[in-house]
Amino acid sequence: MIGMHPDFKLKGFSYPLTPKGISSVIQSFPWHYGTEYLNILFRTDPDVVKSFLPEPLELGPDPGLGYVAFSKWWSISDENKDMPLINPERTQYKEAAIWVGCSFRGNPGQICLFVWVDNDFTMARGWFMGFPKKLGQVYITDYHFLNPGMPQKMEGATFKGIASAHGEKLMEGTMTVERKIKQSDLPPIMTAPPYHIRHFPNIESPTAPPSVLELVRLGAENKKVGEEIWEGSGTLKFYESEIEEHFALRPKEILGAYRFSSGYTFPGGEIVYSWV
Amino acid sequence: MIGMHPDFKLKGFSYPLTPKGISSVIQSFPWHYGTEYLNILFRTDPDVVKSFLPEPLELGPDPGLGYVAFSKWWSISDENKDMPLINPERTQYKEAAIWVGCSFRGNPGQICLFVWVDNDFTMARGWFMGFPKKLGQVYITDYHFLNPGMPQKMEGATFKGIASAHGEKLMEGTMTVERKIKQSDLPPIMTAPPYHIRHFPNIESPTAPPSVLELVRLGAENKKVGEEIWEGSGTLKFYESEIEEHFALRPKEILGAYRFSSGYTFPGGEIVYSWV
Amino acid sequence: MIGMHPDFKLKGFSYPLTPKGISSVIQSFPWHYGTEYLNILFRTDPDVVKSFLPEPLELGPDPGLGYVAFSKWWSISDENKDMPLINPERTQYKEAAIWVGCSFRGNPGQICLFVWVDNDFTMARGWFMGFPKKLGQVYITDYHFLNPGMPQKMEGATFKGIASAHGEKLMEGTMTVERKIKQSDLPPIMTAPPYHIRHFPNIESPTAPPSVLELVRLGAENKKVGEEIWEGSGTLKFYESEIEEHFALRPKEILGAYRFSSGYTFPGGEIVYSWV
Amino acid sequence: MIGMHPDFKLKGFSYPLTPKGISSVIQSFPWHYGTEYLNILFRTDPDVVKSFLPEPLELGPDPGLGYVAFSKWWSISDENKDMPLINPERTQYKEAAIWVGCSFRGNPGQICLFVWVDNDFTMARGWFMGFPKKLGQVYITDYHFLNPGMPQKMEGATFKGIASAHGEKLMEGTMTVERKIKQSDLPPIMTAPPYHIRHFPNIESPTAPPSVLELVRLGAENKKVGEEIWEGSGTLKFYESEIEEHFALRPKEILGAYRFSSGYTFPGGEIVYSWV
Repeated sequence: MIGMHPDFKLKGFSYPLTPKGISSVIQSFPWHYGTEYLNILFRTDPDVVKSFLPEPLELGPDPGLGYVAFSKWWSISDENKDMPLINPERTQYKEAAIWVGCSFRGNPGQICLFVWVDNDFTMARGWFMGFPKKLGQVYITDYHFLNPGMPQKMEGATFKGIASAHGEKLMEGTMTVERKIKQSDLPPIMTAPPYHIRHFPNIESPTAPPSVLELVRLGAENKKVGEEIWEGSGTLKFYESEIEEHFALRPKEILGAYRFSSGYTFPGGEIVYSWV
Repeated sequence: MIGMHPDFKLKGFSYPLTPKGISSVIQSFPWHYGTEYLNILFRTDPDVVKSFLPEPLELGPDPGLGYVAFSKWWSISDENKDMPLINPERTQYKEAAIWVGCSFRGNPGQICLFVWVDNDFTMARGWFMGFPKKLGQVYITDYHFLNPGMPQKMEGATFKGIASAHGEKLMEGTMTVERKIKQSDLPPIMTAPPYHIRHFPNIESPTAPPSVLELVRLGAENKKVGEEIWEGSGTLKFYESEIEEHFALRPKEILGAYRFSSGYTFPGGEIVYSWV
Repeated sequence: MIGMHPDFKLKGFSYPLTPKGISSVIQSFPWHYGTEYLNILFRTDPDVVKSFLPEPLELGPDPGLGYVAFSKWWSISDENKDMPLINPERTQYKEAAIWVGCSFRGNPGQICLFVWVDNDFTMARGWFMGFPKKLGQVYITDYHFLNPGMPQKMEGATFKGIASAHGEKLMEGTMTVERKIKQSDLPPIMTAPPYHIRHFPNIESPTAPPSVLELVRLGAENKKVGEEIWEGSGTLKFYESEIEEHFALRPKEILGAYRFSSGYTFPGGEIVYSWV
Repeated sequence: MIGMHPDFKLKGFSYPLTPKGISSVIQSFPWHYGTEYLNILFRTDPDVVKSFLPEPLELGPDPGLGYVAFSKWWSISDENKDMPLINPERTQYKEAAIWVGCSFRGNPGQICLFVWVDNDFTMARGWFMGFPKKLGQVYITDYHFLNPGMPQKMEGATFKGIASAHGEKLMEGTMTVERKIKQSDLPPIMTAPPYHIRHFPNIESPTAPPSVLELVRLGAENKKVGEEIWEGSGTLKFYESEIEEHFALRPKEILGAYRFSSGYTFPGGEIVYSWV
């Protein structure tokens, strides 16, 4: 199915490539997603954001604006919609991501600069889409409405997201729910098109250009946002790590917090620039 | 707070006991629970069930009846209702359990013979309630209603639960949803009172009687079942393991499958018998 | 085999109790251990240590002395010496523990106040021996002598131990190796007999005395220490947590660091006091 | 440092690319390795092996010959030799791999067709070297010589390796140690040069050729094998999975088992062919 040199008979969207293509850590897009978000909107130093944006990427319309998304995901590939039944473990994961605004040739967008997930298929799929994914643990407050000791309504309820990796806490955010809002009240940065850097290193020489280093605008179809969109106040703290660099983006100001659900289909991306 | 010898000044419901009682792996009951169940009702060999029931426990009113519950839990202790905000990780877990019917002095009940969970606090709390918990991985099909590629209605939807531990699959069950039912249509075994064996081994001699070996009837208050109760057909398979004994209880017949939510408060149990 | 009421026909040293006793999360002692230690010796506030010692436990001969042990374990039960072949996963684990000196009726000893391990069987076994075990992640520097980029000799080599749990770092220690020492040069606290508190909570009332609350002196036979015993300088840092209390014991002074191997057999313990 | 378009100012050998290059999931090669191997040599159907080898890769000199390597790894990047001290977790992992013989233009080699590892940095690094890595759990028998209940000599000792992923066991092998051998007695396939397929999918269209699809011969310097090389008899079993394809390579005959240590430096690879 994949168009390449006729000598290459193995199948699979990604590793491992095999005669039948069954083993691939992730099947081919289109990919369908459903998500529960706990997002904390913040402002950081625009100069720091700028240092993370290689030309031709530029600062976005509101320089220094960003958000952390703690999220739960339900995902499948169009070519294997039975995966939730074959192995549920291959269709659910949690994620914690740092997004900042950017723009490309005048078009505002967003870029994910750090992101931790808790399974291999989503880490791999993320790489193919230019998400710089690493493994981590993500914990998000969740209430069950039949639990007699838990809050029974959203107004006033409090939520926390925690991201940890390699044995240390990396960031933590909280939300106190205040009011229900409309979809149009969501901060535009959260729905701006992602501009991501796809990268695959060279293996011949550590000083040679990467095999892939391209800017891609990720597509989205079938976009839906759930009815329950909540806004509130937030807190957000980044923790230093000797082997992470996200602390440079730590918040200067917290602008709000949002809790909502969404769904979409990823139909593919468009390569808009290549550095190699 | 805990009544014991006045010389004992440490606090905590369980290990680690400390001056302030903060470290305890689980705080004191009452415990509040919310649960999402995927249950497969089955019939196994009554003689095998009998071999798992020490006198004075006896076979239940429908000998050989049992069910496997794949479930997600939201739990808190009454003495620390803020835990979902302090650390969400301490309030959520997944569980896979094998329950069979039993009776005690003419009172029908149920007993959990095997159960795997994915965190320490629930393992420890389970032990205190006579659940024979071990660590494992539990995977349960879940759909997000905004995912464009996932089922949009329950009728006809299929679900799977998987339990694994120490690197091997232990059991797997599926449900095909057929119809909505009323709470009164749920199999009585699923709401019968649990009779559990609390056990804590002797450490002086491997042949001495255990320090604790008592039969307890677990209490339940504030019981609620969610509106959405679904019934359907099921499959269930147990896998052999050199270090597990659950395979002896493998199903002879699958009677149905159930998907529902519930909540309750555990106020404490009553010791109804002691073997030591 | 276990002596108890003849009506109780189930077998197993611990949960789950079953007809054949195969499922037990840990088999009966005697237990055989081999260990690789990275220990940091420190001094903390004696008053804090005292607050962790319920009477009749008292401060040890050197009040405030303690050590953190980052360690790798190889363990088996005498009744199933084939476990390393049946499932290697059931015989290896890592541990990070905080030990302090104590004394009981004039006999010096040590007590483990906090300990994190990375598997269920060792957590359960620890509880039976009065170790207040919780699950955590333990990372310990290790070098492979054939790795061309790693240190080729011990003198000057540096090692780190890290303990994390529920998504946060709890403590971290380092050692710079300086010299080889003899077994008799090891700090006596590291080989003093453990006095531990065995505890199993009551389930009838949160204010009732525990079912088990007893002081036990743990036995040790076949004690061996490997030839390679290294001493050096150390660092040690405890991190605060909202759900841990170990920070109270944080070091005031670091006295040294030790790296060595040992082995022993646990033949059982002796109950020397009961608070209930 | 990395040579690419001057506009691209971010650093790092791999994701995440950042201003300082600290966050990269793995630092640049040269990479230094030390390894403990438990290898089971087997013969499978040559036609099946052939179906895994895209032209110009061909069957090796002994068609159908392969081995499973259960292994523990100690690794560092030359540009950050302090990583074992910064965070030991970033320098140790376990791996289970299926290797088969192959040849390229008359040169015999080996290719890794399936491999499971237990951490993200090694999964990512593997991808860059053409290893089709997925996350899994790997358990390997290990004995500690000071454990009073464990074997005290290698002759006659038995070892097991287990590989599991996504909740199911994938393969299992055992070795009974028989004799010490010389390095020159090791099966040549185990030291033949690896020919791997580097692959990075296209993101614009699922039917477009991959962005990278090239054959690479991996280099090795500073090769060392430890003194203790053991040979014995083995067993090996592959387990079916709905989402893995390794079962097609299941052994027809077990030829032997090997336990040894080795070390080497990876200086880079050479691209010898490209399919796109």
